[in-house]
Amino acid sequence: MTTKATAPDDTFHVFDTTLRDGAQREGINLTVADKLTIARHLDDFGVGFIEGGWPGANPRDTEFFARARQEIDFEHAQLVAFGATRRAGGKASEDPQVQALLDSGAPVITLVAKSHDRHVELALRTTLDENLEMVRDTVTHLREQGRRVFVDCEHFFDGYRTDAEYAKSVVRTAHEAGADVVILCDTNGGMLPAQVQAVVSTVLADTGARIGIHAQDDTGCAVANTLAAVDAGATHVQCTANGYGERVGNANLFPVVAALELKYGKTVLHEGALAEMTRISHAIAEVVNLTPSTHQPYVGVSAFAHKAGLHASAIKVDPDLYQHIDPERVGNTMRMLVSDMAGRASIELKGKELGIDLGDDRALVGRVVERVKERELKGYTYEAADASFELLLRAEVEGRPRRYFRVESWRAIVEDRPDGTHANEATVKLWAKGERIVATAEGNGPVNALDRALRVGLERIYPQLAKLELVDYKVRILEGRTGTESTTRVLITTGDGSGDWATVGVAENVIAASWQALEDAYTYGLLRAGVEPTD
Amino acid sequence: MTTKATAPDDTFHVFDTTLRDGAQREGINLTVADKLTIARHLDDFGVGFIEGGWPGANPRDTEFFARARQEIDFEHAQLVAFGATRRAGGKASEDPQVQALLDSGAPVITLVAKSHDRHVELALRTTLDENLEMVRDTVTHLREQGRRVFVDCEHFFDGYRTDAEYAKSVVRTAHEAGADVVILCDTNGGMLPAQVQAVVSTVLADTGARIGIHAQDDTGCAVANTLAAVDAGATHVQCTANGYGERVGNANLFPVVAALELKYGKTVLHEGALAEMTRISHAIAEVVNLTPSTHQPYVGVSAFAHKAGLHASAIKVDPDLYQHIDPERVGNTMRMLVSDMAGRASIELKGKELGIDLGDDRALVGRVVERVKERELKGYTYEAADASFELLLRAEVEGRPRRYFRVESWRAIVEDRPDGTHANEATVKLWAKGERIVATAEGNGPVNALDRALRVGLERIYPQLAKLELVDYKVRILEGRTGTESTTRVLITTGDGSGDWATVGVAENVIAASWQALEDAYTYGLLRAGVEPTD
Repeated sequence: MTTKATAPDDTFHVFDTTLRDGAQREGINLTVADKLTIARHLDDFGVGFIEGGWPGANPRDTEFFARARQEIDFEHAQLVAFGATRRAGGKASEDPQVQALLDSGAPVITLVAKSHDRHVELALRTTLDENLEMVRDTVTHLREQGRRVFVDCEHFFDGYRTDAEYAKSVVRTAHEAGADVVILCDTNGGMLPAQVQAVVSTVLADTGARIGIHAQDDTGCAVANTLAAVDAGATHVQCTANGYGERVGNANLFPVVAALELKYGKTVLHEGALAEMTRISHAIAEVVNLTPSTHQPYVGVSAFAHKAGLHASAIKVDPDLYQHIDPERVGNTMRMLVSDMAGRASIELKGKELGIDLGDDRALVGRVVERVKERELKGYTYEAADASFELLLRAEVEGRPRRYFRVESWRAIVEDRPDGTHANEATVKLWAKGERIVATAEGNGPVNALDRALRVGLERIYPQLAKLELVDYKVRILEGRTGTESTTRVLITTGDGSGDWATVGVAENVIAASWQALEDAYTYGLLRAGVEPTD
Repeated sequence: MTTKATAPDDTFHVFDTTLRDGAQREGINLTVADKLTIARHLDDFGVGFIEGGWPGANPRDTEFFARARQEIDFEHAQLVAFGATRRAGGKASEDPQVQALLDSGAPVITLVAKSHDRHVELALRTTLDENLEMVRDTVTHLREQGRRVFVDCEHFFDGYRTDAEYAKSVVRTAHEAGADVVILCDTNGGMLPAQVQAVVSTVLADTGARIGIHAQDDTGCAVANTLAAVDAGATHVQCTANGYGERVGNANLFPVVAALELKYGKTVLHEGALAEMTRISHAIAEVVNLTPSTHQPYVGVSAFAHKAGLHASAIKVDPDLYQHIDPERVGNTMRMLVSDMAGRASIELKGKELGIDLGDDRALVGRVVERVKERELKGYTYEAADASFELLLRAEVEGRPRRYFRVESWRAIVEDRPDGTHANEATVKLWAKGERIVATAEGNGPVNALDRALRVGLERIYPQLAKLELVDYKVRILEGRTGTESTTRVLITTGDGSGDWATVGVAENVIAASWQALEDAYTYGLLRAGVEPTD
């Protein structure tokens, strides 16, 4: 493990704690391999510090530090180990938990310290004086061992309300013992920006310590609280990718960094990093196996999506009038949404985006608007299924649907056997290039079996299908309270190695809806490959 | 339509625009019935104003106003129609769009006005003076017709940057013509709280108008921007339920109102309304057919969910130390999450929550922790499937799983016929009370067919099953980029009229995973009904 640079210098810290505090989010469960992958993404993005976990507290985190030192050649970030101050009544130099932090080999250590009097007494069960001594002793010991030390003052803002002097004495003790930064944590997340700004100002003036901020999002103000602390003089911000974290979550790294770079004009990342933000946000969501939030500021797929017919016509005049920043600065793109709320202007812009010239054919655009309305009433959504929309649009432009094959019928069987194994078998009957094809395949599920049967049947005629791969599959039951009797919408994402496309199917059951989306996916794949329609 | 009270008085307005601006969100498409249902929920919650749409602009909104007047007996809210100032060069009294606003019968009208010089020139294509005249004329006309008028200054903050004097002149014109409130809109959502506070202060001082705020969430600061405007003297906040809205969304009604009531100590709702907030948030999500955000401040199911083993043990001492508010104040509840990151303390607390006494049996708790870890590795998640967790816990406590029936095998067939119709048929072979049961049923999909076959087979033996209903069905493909070949997780929510419960199934295909979740759902339903296990 080598560190080439803390980007861009040490005067301001972007400190990421996705791997430690972010992992507390409901639904996240990271393996060591996941943590290594995320650390690489964060380093690419250019955060200054990556808090990797609590070595010694669980075998997974210990292993992560050992492997990160071996396997990752950090370009921008320094690795940080998180741990607690020593036990009450002991010595830091003899405390096995403190020793494990040193053993991790991390050049920087964040120590969590209690700064709320009631937490010291009720949760830590020691005296206020001994708590200060624990901070002093542990920071001093780690500094003597050559490590840089940051101190997280847990529950600082709540503690400040019950005993401001004691809370500040913890900051002062950490600072005097050699901590480089003392971080004020809104652990329970109940603060609002004006309160944060006032407290940070006072603590800075009264203690002389370098101050950082760690905000949780329980009031929906974590990003604003972080910026309020910066306004008051904090020079170290602790965030997590996509705002992952316990309860509501932590301050979201991406809008914080974007505000600092684009609104404050502060350079906190290396050049070009911001334009990777959308990609990195989505890549991390994929690793933690959570669907990326479509409505996340800056990086969500909807963040620059325009729907209103009113706006759509004005956007044709000047897109800058309708966006607070150019989406390309954060690696995102403007999208026009196709929906029955949208009028002709949206369809025309969408056609342009797809490279399909609709010319001045008002009747044609009108027919497309009608067709979209009619299909959306049935449950289709073209906002999320660009490829199905393009097929619909081309069908109107070309006067008939693109067709590479015709389906006679299909069947899928799922059977649970007494021994607990399952058999999944599908048969498809198709016509392509004048030939009747009957193909049967097995799969690990009925949709997979249908996918394989379709491919087995068509691949001889269309060898281009060999490189198609299903990359995502989403099922949505429409109409709330009627369970499996409702309409089912399936969205399928398919890739061919050089790009992905999404298709939609709607039917009374999941298999029939999947089949429709598969048909569109294969049709679009052949269109993309430049194959001429034959049917 | 009668209005009993504007809660609690007119000095501060909670103005909801879910039905107008919120409906711009990608994926939302409201019917008139949806809008009426949401209006009732918002009135129950106690907002002062409900902006229902743009009558005249589309038939749906016109119909909504007509039916709302007939069908809803508003308790707290006043209905507001949204529309634009008159056309350039015309007269407000002769403008059909303005007339449609009057025809809606709404007692309050919000007019959108341009306040950004470039928008006036490029989008509206008129002069700056004529734009002021359009505001003056339209407000005057509507006031003469006896309506209360609010004016939304679109793109105000961006306009203020390019020409502050012109932006303020629009506010002044609206105010002088008789608008009760002039709303400064951050239409593109690019502002930060400090900027909003400064601009609102200046505009208030310079114009003397009553000021409102309309914030969009593009910087992730919409809630904080709204509160910053209130700090500066704004007395009217425009929000949407769950923050729905174009692009990233609007200022979220729920955290704004919660901050005002709980953090500012301001009474903005009628008594008892805040405790309905979680229910109303979820009910509205259900109507718009979007999954409620699990991580929404105050109302998300995760908002008071605790995962960390460290915290879990301290929470046993004093929950108030770990929560910024008592979740019951907003109608939410504290939850302990069962996850392999959690230790014994979480399992013990969870047992208590479920009313299952684990006593001091450390070995038992250890076995449950192990079992959860092992299952979560396979893809199960008990965080979202309380009923499946309770079955697992009881199996350990009681020494054997609860069983009301035993499955020999099952089979589902889906067939697409040449005429485009589908046949879905399922057969189950079961044992219950010593009897072998073979049942076959058809359904509108394979899971529905299995559900019906299971019910047909068991209902004679367990008549309690008659009232069970599947209320939600969710499919998640685990492991990102391998499409339908991945592991599938199904979460099923079942209700019996008096409550809902969630169960989980994980298998290599969607039908087999659904079957597992169905088996748990029926077993738990019988347990809930107090039926003694027989097998």
